[in-house]
Amino acid sequence: MDTSADIFTNDEIVTRARARLAPAVWDYLTGGAESERALCGNRLALDSLAFLPRVLRDVAERSTATSLFGRSMALPAFLAPIGSLSLFDKEGALASAAAARAAGVPCFISIMSQPALEEVARAEPDAVLILQIYVRGDRDWLRQVVGRAEAAGCAAICLTVDSAVYGRRERDLRNRFSSAAAVDRVNFDDRKSVQITTEQAALSWDDVAFLRSLTRLPLILKGILHPEDARLAAEHGADAVYLSNHGGRQLDHCVPALDQIEAARAAIGADKPVLVDGGFLRGTDIAKALALGATAAGLGKLQGLALAAGGRAGVETMLSLLKAELSNALALLGCRTVAQLDAALLRRTQP
Amino acid sequence: MDTSADIFTNDEIVTRARARLAPAVWDYLTGGAESERALCGNRLALDSLAFLPRVLRDVAERSTATSLFGRSMALPAFLAPIGSLSLFDKEGALASAAAARAAGVPCFISIMSQPALEEVARAEPDAVLILQIYVRGDRDWLRQVVGRAEAAGCAAICLTVDSAVYGRRERDLRNRFSSAAAVDRVNFDDRKSVQITTEQAALSWDDVAFLRSLTRLPLILKGILHPEDARLAAEHGADAVYLSNHGGRQLDHCVPALDQIEAARAAIGADKPVLVDGGFLRGTDIAKALALGATAAGLGKLQGLALAAGGRAGVETMLSLLKAELSNALALLGCRTVAQLDAALLRRTQP
Amino acid sequence: MDTSADIFTNDEIVTRARARLAPAVWDYLTGGAESERALCGNRLALDSLAFLPRVLRDVAERSTATSLFGRSMALPAFLAPIGSLSLFDKEGALASAAAARAAGVPCFISIMSQPALEEVARAEPDAVLILQIYVRGDRDWLRQVVGRAEAAGCAAICLTVDSAVYGRRERDLRNRFSSAAAVDRVNFDDRKSVQITTEQAALSWDDVAFLRSLTRLPLILKGILHPEDARLAAEHGADAVYLSNHGGRQLDHCVPALDQIEAARAAIGADKPVLVDGGFLRGTDIAKALALGATAAGLGKLQGLALAAGGRAGVETMLSLLKAELSNALALLGCRTVAQLDAALLRRTQP
Amino acid sequence: MDTSADIFTNDEIVTRARARLAPAVWDYLTGGAESERALCGNRLALDSLAFLPRVLRDVAERSTATSLFGRSMALPAFLAPIGSLSLFDKEGALASAAAARAAGVPCFISIMSQPALEEVARAEPDAVLILQIYVRGDRDWLRQVVGRAEAAGCAAICLTVDSAVYGRRERDLRNRFSSAAAVDRVNFDDRKSVQITTEQAALSWDDVAFLRSLTRLPLILKGILHPEDARLAAEHGADAVYLSNHGGRQLDHCVPALDQIEAARAAIGADKPVLVDGGFLRGTDIAKALALGATAAGLGKLQGLALAAGGRAGVETMLSLLKAELSNALALLGCRTVAQLDAALLRRTQP
Ligand SMILES: Cc1cc2nc3c(=O)[nH]c(=O)nc-3n(C[C@H](O)[C@H](O)[C@H](O)COP(=O)(O)O)c2cc1C
Ligand SMILES: Cc1cc2nc3c(=O)[nH]c(=O)nc-3n(C[C@H](O)[C@H](O)[C@H](O)COP(=O)(O)O)c2cc1C
Ligand SMILES: Cc1cc2nc3c(=O)[nH]c(=O)nc-3n(C[C@H](O)[C@H](O)[C@H](O)COP(=O)(O)O)c2cc1C
Ligand SMILES: Cc1cc2nc3c(=O)[nH]c(=O)nc-3n(C[C@H](O)[C@H](O)[C@H](O)COP(=O)(O)O)c2cc1C
Repeated sequence: MDTSADIFTNDEIVTRARARLAPAVWDYLTGGAESERALCGNRLALDSLAFLPRVLRDVAERSTATSLFGRSMALPAFLAPIGSLSLFDKEGALASAAAARAAGVPCFISIMSQPALEEVARAEPDAVLILQIYVRGDRDWLRQVVGRAEAAGCAAICLTVDSAVYGRRERDLRNRFSSAAAVDRVNFDDRKSVQITTEQAALSWDDVAFLRSLTRLPLILKGILHPEDARLAAEHGADAVYLSNHGGRQLDHCVPALDQIEAARAAIGADKPVLVDGGFLRGTDIAKALALGATAAGLGKLQGLALAAGGRAGVETMLSLLKAELSNALALLGCRTVAQLDAALLRRTQP
Repeated sequence: MDTSADIFTNDEIVTRARARLAPAVWDYLTGGAESERALCGNRLALDSLAFLPRVLRDVAERSTATSLFGRSMALPAFLAPIGSLSLFDKEGALASAAAARAAGVPCFISIMSQPALEEVARAEPDAVLILQIYVRGDRDWLRQVVGRAEAAGCAAICLTVDSAVYGRRERDLRNRFSSAAAVDRVNFDDRKSVQITTEQAALSWDDVAFLRSLTRLPLILKGILHPEDARLAAEHGADAVYLSNHGGRQLDHCVPALDQIEAARAAIGADKPVLVDGGFLRGTDIAKALALGATAAGLGKLQGLALAAGGRAGVETMLSLLKAELSNALALLGCRTVAQLDAALLRRTQP
Repeated sequence: MDTSADIFTNDEIVTRARARLAPAVWDYLTGGAESERALCGNRLALDSLAFLPRVLRDVAERSTATSLFGRSMALPAFLAPIGSLSLFDKEGALASAAAARAAGVPCFISIMSQPALEEVARAEPDAVLILQIYVRGDRDWLRQVVGRAEAAGCAAICLTVDSAVYGRRERDLRNRFSSAAAVDRVNFDDRKSVQITTEQAALSWDDVAFLRSLTRLPLILKGILHPEDARLAAEHGADAVYLSNHGGRQLDHCVPALDQIEAARAAIGADKPVLVDGGFLRGTDIAKALALGATAAGLGKLQGLALAAGGRAGVETMLSLLKAELSNALALLGCRTVAQLDAALLRRTQP
Repeated sequence: MDTSADIFTNDEIVTRARARLAPAVWDYLTGGAESERALCGNRLALDSLAFLPRVLRDVAERSTATSLFGRSMALPAFLAPIGSLSLFDKEGALASAAAARAAGVPCFISIMSQPALEEVARAEPDAVLILQIYVRGDRDWLRQVVGRAEAAGCAAICLTVDSAVYGRRERDLRNRFSSAAAVDRVNFDDRKSVQITTEQAALSWDDVAFLRSLTRLPLILKGILHPEDARLAAEHGADAVYLSNHGGRQLDHCVPALDQIEAARAAIGADKPVLVDGGFLRGTDIAKALALGATAAGLGKLQGLALAAGGRAGVETMLSLLKAELSNALALLGCRTVAQLDAALLRRTQP
């Protein structure tokens, strides 16, 4: 196997991943819902912003560091929850957690991922792990899951609210590919709990209030887009909103999360973290999200591609490329810290 | 022959249709007038709208049902009138009517289609049939046609007003293809009445008033685009306006009907149905039209393609895919019913 | 040789012309200045307008007729001046004039075309000929040219004002092709007067006043774009302004003439004709120009292509296709006459 | 070797350069940072402006001349500083300086270029040379460099401020290509001083003030984009601002300099020169920049391409083509001098 040491650009990660993944798994990882308009829209949104940099501001010393819920992060980025990580590398979530720990960023652990949360937590005690929950049972089930997250030392809990049903991913339909058949859901007793339950589809703000009552861990709602929902999230005790259209895999034609950052920030005020994802591939992408008011950006497909390209080392390389790119962008924008990124550095442009 | 059972996506319908149709028939079905700018514009209009969804609204129970003229529909969609259905499947309108009945949606029967209206009505007594009329005779002829529609138990009558002359479909001109030569107009005595008559070209609001006086069946005017014409339609007793640029087959460079929904709705008020067609291929397309104020969306080319792909079963599969997609979109938009779709869920975007 | 009788669409004219012309002549005819941005912009401008048609207005009887300087035209179109017509068909201007006469439209005769003005006038006494002048001599020379136009029975005189220098047509430069070398300038004593003279480059409003003083023939200024220049034209006694960017062959990145119609019309008032050209290929294009306020549209490249495709018969076919298309567009727009075309029928759109 | 005498269009320069350069050198010369969005954006900005020309203004006599710091220029253009000129032609900066001198335009000499400044100055005593400095040492080092510039008779000094770090040029990264390894930095004692030093990254307005205090030569700051930085530049004694995103080679997604001309001009007033570069390939491009308020436009990649295409003669040909194009554009815009170019001649358009 190649070592990731000879990967110099994110592009090379993609090329290598493509070469290593079976076509149907490549499609599963990189495809979107239906016509894939939401998927493309995520990149278009990022490419619709240009930078208007400042100069001569002494940027010899720069830091890409920030923090989330009082924990420091080396980079305003995190690994987004991915449910079938073992499809891309046999180590699965272990690899992601290890790379995130090494790079100093949080790692979301999807409840659908492999191996079990406890195994990941045991292997990576210093990683900042955040359990992402899909509801596949009643309130007792939920209480039990939250208990496991606390026991495993998770830094926060994340409830995904954009998945009342699964999006129609037509590449998978055409390929007759089912990730459910391909991987075990080891965090569930029956190891197969992928079907969406009534509980998930019926989720309402009441359930958020209930979840809130179960734990003192920070609570993140993932999949918010409407500013009114951001406001409701704060009102119901969420500690952070995570703006996302699920990488274009759920609702086709969905607005990009990036375009909702400013409205969400206005809705919930300056204090609570606003996380965002969708199409992030580079340091400049992260800089844009932060300039609009986000706290950190999540890496979904890029994480999967890096895993496929080089396993744990691949994810580490990817994160260190992002850090180098972001540091580079800060310097060229005239910023020493990510806190100096603001909307005055941005201009709308044609993508 | 393949059964339609193995069609999982609308895309597969198109692929299959392309494989089965003779090139000139494919061109006849899928082509538009002159430069095909109106044809493309229909899709561009749909793709120029994005969704801004709501979450946590308990969407476990959803319904795609609605109603038209007091009759319930399983889906806010209908089969648009197509004149030469037997080119795509030998069963022609019989197949469309059967599939529409099975799926619980109305079926427009073009006066140009095969077999005769009466034969379709006899075979599908439970189908909701709406006779679409092109005027090819004088007022006596029209009275007679309306009488046939009433006798056949049609649910409504539809007069197409965007076809004073035929659009110049250049693919057909280049292919030296004539649908008139290819199919019998069995609803006409001479079986060949496709030439546009002075009566059709001379149609005016007086003729609408006359048609209105002939029957108590609901009257639909098809091919309205200008809001002032929508207002005039209501004033002249039309029970519904059907916004359409005829799938881009008539006036090249014509605006898409989708972009006229809001103005038409404003012109005629909240009560009368607004039907719309042009480029509809998916559940999200239908959701957009409804969010803008339409009552239901018509399926033209997609109907023809489904017929070609799998006959009656193909149309059924197509309609059930649309229903699944729409239900999916409702869930992901945070809606339980189609009535909850409104313009607050939409944002303009680059296509 | 094929007869033009089997040309059913304008597309077929283009295909045939391409097959018949030597590549360098094809490039000379169809190319534009430098990067060809102005050339493309002409089509983009036309495609940036959509129609919002009216219905039920009794369009059984329609007329595409209009008039210019009191002379009736069967179609609001004319053959634009082209300097090297004999490159496309050996008959040259004779073919254009004959076709224009047969179709009932005016024919501009470029002073650079072949054969000599007098020969064309003799052969086509019933054609409406308008001599287009490039200044290649002093005021005496100009007086003489105007005298020839009057003697030949021209209906008007046209001075082209957008050609102080020739545009840099890079296809020709790359092809090392020179139209000057390829054709004789038979309207000039030395048969080679193509070099731009100081007189042409030095043209000013004074020269317009002088030209105005020479004749009572209607005077047209060709190549106006700025509304202020349209106003100055009227002030200096021009009877019509001819908006044109010379088919994108002169100033690269030049605005399309179409986009200047409304401002020019506002500048000179409702009475004087506004002619326009640039990218016109179809009846709908002409309808758009008229809806914006133009009187008639000129055909440059399309004329050359039709000549190449079928000589005199080719131009006739082209004009009759345009007439059929325009009549068709009128019907589908709800208009009986070209005078009914107005801006309320147009909407801006993405091209 | 071909002589440049047979180059008729700029296009031919590009074709020839591509044929002569090794692929990795071609990529080094023509590539941009990361996704190359800034690179493309430079052309998009130029193509987003159209001309609305004036006519009949007697343009028989035209001049493209202008001046910078009291020195006359035959053309409002100059050769931008390029660091590794000897990669494209073994003569390197000697060729550029000679061609610039022959064409009557200034030549920026990058401190990174070959041969040494003194050798260029000796060979081309009549050239207008401007030394462009990257800071690779302390204030003593800077004093020494400025002394060399004065001694060599430079017309001005230019400090590049957009390069606190190098942009990530991914083509080079993928090609494992390093210009540092390929060429000697002969203006530095160690001949290898390409690594960015703390001094360069730490540059601040204080350093500008210091540099200002060192010399009475005109001082240019290169790489300004924000109007506030333009204002600060003037305030700190800069004699000209040079708007540039470094040809898209530094900050990816950076705004094009062209779009900042008007704001910069407003910020610093009418008197000081505003230089600009990024994507300039033609006379019309230069005309646009001047119409927006710039004094002259710089040629980066085009200079490198011309060098590669034909060495010193290639650059001369390129400059004379630009002059011909600009003179042509002036004539067709109705201008006799570059001073007559103003924003009333421009319209925004879709690129
Ligand atoms: C293969 C795959 C699996 C995913 N699984 C989950 C999941 O289990 N839970 C979840 O909340 N989001 C899941 N997501 C969505 C990601 O968390 C994230 O929102 C999205 O990928 C971000 O967009 P990007 O892929 O463009 O970076 C998944 C995404 C992918 C690509
Ligand atoms: C092959 C074909 C035949 C058609 N025949 C008729 C017809 O007889 N009467 C009518 O009103 N519309 C007719 N139409 C137009 C459709 O009713 C409908 O307005 C249009 O197809 C909608 O656009 P879409 O094809 O993009 O769905 C026809 C359309 C097609 C594609
Ligand atoms: C081959 C060719 C030769 C032309 N010669 C002349 C000419 O002699 N005088 C003139 O005023 N315009 C001339 N034109 C410009 C046309 O009159 C007209 O303005 C232009 O072609 C209109 O644009 P279109 O070609 O897109 O229709 C010429 C155009 C072409 C294509
Ligand atoms: C190969 C290359 C080397 C360059 N080296 C320098 C340099 O040493 N110093 C500098 O200030 N700019 C340098 N630049 C940037 C140019 O001065 C200029 O800003 C840029 O090329 C303008 O854009 P254009 O290439 O699209 O014309 C370089 C550009 C290129 C293409």
